Amino acid sequence: MSFEAVTEAIRRESTPDTTERQRLEEVATTLRARATAAVTERVPDADVVQVGSTARNTWVSGDRDIDIFVRFPPETDRDTLERVGLEVGHETLPSGHEEYAEHPYVKGTYDGFDIDIVPCFRLERASDIRSAVDRTPFHNRYLDRRLDETLADDSRITKQFLKGIDVYGSDLRTAGFSGYLTELLVLEYGGFRPLLEAAADWHPPVELDPEDHGSASFDDPLVVIDPTDPTRNVAAVCSPANVARLQHYARAMLAEPTLKYFRPADPDPLEPSELETHLERRGATSLAIRFDTPDLVDDQLYPQLYKSLDGIARGLDARGFDVLRKTTMAADTAVLLFDLGVPRRPKIERHEGPPVHVRDHAEGFFAAYVDDDSVYGPFIDGDRYVVERERTCTSALEFLESPRLFDVSLGAHVETALDDGYTVLVDDELTDLLEDFGPALRRYFEPTP
Amino acid sequence: MSFEAVTEAIRRESTPDTTERQRLEEVATTLRARATAAVTERVPDADVVQVGSTARNTWVSGDRDIDIFVRFPPETDRDTLERVGLEVGHETLPSGHEEYAEHPYVKGTYDGFDIDIVPCFRLERASDIRSAVDRTPFHNRYLDRRLDETLADDSRITKQFLKGIDVYGSDLRTAGFSGYLTELLVLEYGGFRPLLEAAADWHPPVELDPEDHGSASFDDPLVVIDPTDPTRNVAAVCSPANVARLQHYARAMLAEPTLKYFRPADPDPLEPSELETHLERRGATSLAIRFDTPDLVDDQLYPQLYKSLDGIARGLDARGFDVLRKTTMAADTAVLLFDLGVPRRPKIERHEGPPVHVRDHAEGFFAAYVDDDSVYGPFIDGDRYVVERERTCTSALEFLESPRLFDVSLGAHVETALDDGYTVLVDDELTDLLEDFGPALRRYFEPTP
Repeated sequence: MSFEAVTEAIRRESTPDTTERQRLEEVATTLRARATAAVTERVPDADVVQVGSTARNTWVSGDRDIDIFVRFPPETDRDTLERVGLEVGHETLPSGHEEYAEHPYVKGTYDGFDIDIVPCFRLERASDIRSAVDRTPFHNRYLDRRLDETLADDSRITKQFLKGIDVYGSDLRTAGFSGYLTELLVLEYGGFRPLLEAAADWHPPVELDPEDHGSASFDDPLVVIDPTDPTRNVAAVCSPANVARLQHYARAMLAEPTLKYFRPADPDPLEPSELETHLERRGATSLAIRFDTPDLVDDQLYPQLYKSLDGIARGLDARGFDVLRKTTMAADTAVLLFDLGVPRRPKIERHEGPPVHVRDHAEGFFAAYVDDDSVYGPFIDGDRYVVERERTCTSALEFLESPRLFDVSLGAHVETALDDGYTVLVDDELTDLLEDFGPALRRYFEPTP
Repeated sequence: MSFEAVTEAIRRESTPDTTERQRLEEVATTLRARATAAVTERVPDADVVQVGSTARNTWVSGDRDIDIFVRFPPETDRDTLERVGLEVGHETLPSGHEEYAEHPYVKGTYDGFDIDIVPCFRLERASDIRSAVDRTPFHNRYLDRRLDETLADDSRITKQFLKGIDVYGSDLRTAGFSGYLTELLVLEYGGFRPLLEAAADWHPPVELDPEDHGSASFDDPLVVIDPTDPTRNVAAVCSPANVARLQHYARAMLAEPTLKYFRPADPDPLEPSELETHLERRGATSLAIRFDTPDLVDDQLYPQLYKSLDGIARGLDARGFDVLRKTTMAADTAVLLFDLGVPRRPKIERHEGPPVHVRDHAEGFFAAYVDDDSVYGPFIDGDRYVVERERTCTSALEFLESPRLFDVSLGAHVETALDDGYTVLVDDELTDLLEDFGPALRRYFEPTP
């Protein structure tokens, strides 16, 4: 298929039809009216705005999120905002429940749509914001004024592409591209194709500043200065791997356009016999720590899982158990999985001292070990003192099963969960994970970009 | 003991007594006369000089080397020098045999002394030399004029110290301090104690230039510009470890003077039960390659053994079999011994590609592997492509026993010897080495500075 044929097909399927638009508009109108009535009766100067892609006509057909922001005057105190905000939320959406982001808010469903009723401050400038949600109405206004019908189409196509290649979403599990970031990129480059052509040639760090007002510097591979806030990188959450993934698939899509890149992968669960084949073919040592998943929302859980995964991997590497690859997955139980190149080390380890000519350090090192019968040496190798000392940990399994596991950097709730108990599965025992994590294990053992 | 008491004791035992001096002088006089008669009858303008420590009164009591240099006029052609040199050698020392250094020469014993009769060119300046032996008479003259009785005493003490700590000798097995270098250092610093005090504080590279005429630069830890040749580092052969060793023992001798540092270690052979204890305590994998020692003089053999030891160690390290320690030893058979931290690796290895944003390389890497069913990936890790590919070598023993051993850098004659056959001993099998290498194995398993 040609590039144009593919994008035209995606444009057609991602653009909501008249029925979908009407149904959404009816629901949104009803809820905005209810929220306006509920809030002005309590705070006459407050107002209500709808934000997000369903407000901007950039949602992908089938998306069902309606975000209603209830804006309080800036002089409102925070307690009032939170209390009245929840009252308005419940009155607008009686079946909803409370959740907590930066403020508490009400979330629920209505007529098949996912509804958020979020209180915020109504401010003059985005730079005056008191919490991240206050910024959202500014984002909405910025894009709404600039995205014409063609760019709105391309925003939908781009979102579908990012979904297809599994990098869409600024939640902390995905660490990918938010809807706002996606639309800014489409706006900046002038469409889906020019965005792909640019991304294919990016040399991170890539720095975009649509309003040319950036006033801070960032360490991220992709920097898009928020047009409504010169101090914020809209792409801050975007991981290096996801930027690289966009570059990879941008090139792939330009070289050989196909609908496949717009279809999220939905792998079959890995079968026990396939797992066995992989373990045999790899010949590595696979160790999986399994424990009860801490009761946290994903945006709190995944950063803790990633932190723990990195901390334990560094702990394993530091002890010489070379980590080849690693991943984490979570359902009712959570898993930290490591493939090791070296599962065991000798009883001794080489410990290099200072060069003999660095007299103070060298004399200190020599004095520290010369009468220590537990070490080999000190001897001289090259220009340094060296000893071979006892290793505290000669087996990776032993390390993971010992209290020393808690010496590494772990997410706080993961640490508590591990403290409550965990098991370590070795090689064939990974079969126990297939029931809950079959598709994730196929992704791990059959990796793609 | 005080420093002075120790050095006085060593001075007394290392200074030849009158009887030793007289006996040596008688022999030297006889041989000089014979050589002079033999050469002037053939080349009237030639002459004879005695060189080396026995000519300079700096030999350590018990040393029995007498070096007679037969100097031919510079216009002599090389063939004549070699032919007449050998004739003179044989006539001077009828029981001698021919050896080959830079020229052929005659070597043998006479009345209990080890004699060399060496032909060389008699030149105006050391910089005119045609071969290294031509330089020796210049060295002799330089030191002879400058070493008084006290410095001669200190030269002997220093030599005995360097022998005691096993760094005396510029042969390529020892890679230590030559007699000439030792005397230059004593002269430069003004004695044994000032030399130790300086060495204890050396910060390599240490550069000494007694005649302040150096005209070349060197990459060695110790540089002593030859007073008779501005382009030569007298300490070029000195290894970093031996410089460090001198520094270590200089500090030790100054801190706690003892006769022990002047007594070369003479370790008992390691016992089988001790070897077993060490192997168990270390828990490493010990692999020893054993083969028939190539028929070479030590100055050719040891550089080849060291080169092969380094080459194989690099080969093992590059394949992930971390070398903890290594050594070589030679008698009728030669041994290359390695202690490994990792004897085996998985069937796959991680192979990092370029960052995805380096488009040309990244596309090339991806294209090279995307259809390769033998690898895992390519996938993206951080900002790079990565594949896991089959490892060519999963066992260190297998590597040492395979033809791939010959892919590493080996000494030429060692390569030939290995090609003729070798065995690899693993762990307990090292017992087979105890009969020939018992003391060397004790040095290896009980290392000191």
